[in-house]
Amino acid sequence: MPKGSVSLTRSIHPGQRMADAWLDAIHWNPDGLVPVIAQEVGTGVVLMLAWMNPESLRLTRDSGYAVYWSRSRGRLWRKGEESGHQQRVRAIRLDCDADVILIEVEQQGGIACHTGRHHCFFRQLDANGNWGEIAPVLKDPAAIYHQPSQTHE
Amino acid sequence: MPKGSVSLTRSIHPGQRMADAWLDAIHWNPDGLVPVIAQEVGTGVVLMLAWMNPESLRLTRDSGYAVYWSRSRGRLWRKGEESGHQQRVRAIRLDCDADVILIEVEQQGGIACHTGRHHCFFRQLDANGNWGEIAPVLKDPAAIYHQPSQTHE
Repeated sequence: MPKGSVSLTRSIHPGQRMADAWLDAIHWNPDGLVPVIAQEVGTGVVLMLAWMNPESLRLTRDSGYAVYWSRSRGRLWRKGEESGHQQRVRAIRLDCDADVILIEVEQQGGIACHTGRHHCFFRQLDANGNWGEIAPVLKDPAAIYHQPSQTHE
Repeated sequence: MPKGSVSLTRSIHPGQRMADAWLDAIHWNPDGLVPVIAQEVGTGVVLMLAWMNPESLRLTRDSGYAVYWSRSRGRLWRKGEESGHQQRVRAIRLDCDADVILIEVEQQGGIACHTGRHHCFFRQLDANGNWGEIAPVLKDPAAIYHQPSQTHE
């Protein structure tokens, strides 16, 4: 998946968006989306879960960098477009029911979460039924974003 | 999360299902569900993604074993109820947007997938745009289930 590569179908049908077989194999939900788990290569840390539509998954494959679909903003979300914390994609995997994707990524900057943490799953249920925090803030969100209060999507 | 433990709210309001604060913290989707990633303790392997409703998540916490909500069957799905491949839950984590759960589990039998594989993400996109298989079948599904063609949910 070299950056800037051009898909075969695009050259066959210039200017036309094709439905590739590999995309057709995926069972998209009624909103045309699929949940995508991003797991860090090497550490195995589950960084986050976000959503993709066919276009964002195609762009992810073609560019080699994770491109999600922002449900709240209703547009493509090139991960790291504001933070610089891009995700270099090393593998794209599909589950048995073809309705969940897992991507293996290298997390640039070591921060996947908009809260400035390594990963998003930093709250853990304790014995008293409280969500405690188990991962530190590595960088102040105010230093990452212009608008620190924004969410992932 | 000892097996058979009784929640505090249950003793306060016998016979009544309470909305616990820790469940209220979760942003359930319009169907009242949340996606749940199951990750294997020790190996870090992402085994599967399934869904929970508040009841199944409460049962998961109270029993210490993963209980999902089967969307296709429209009922609680006690993981391993047919296969014996239960998931002992060691931690329950919540993401930054409070709309994705990650559970750390010990996978009994070493098989999480209904196809008889260790995990569900056994298809990987290759350079030719094909989904290739990267994980072996460890046990014939026909030997696991009476009806081998069933899906996860």
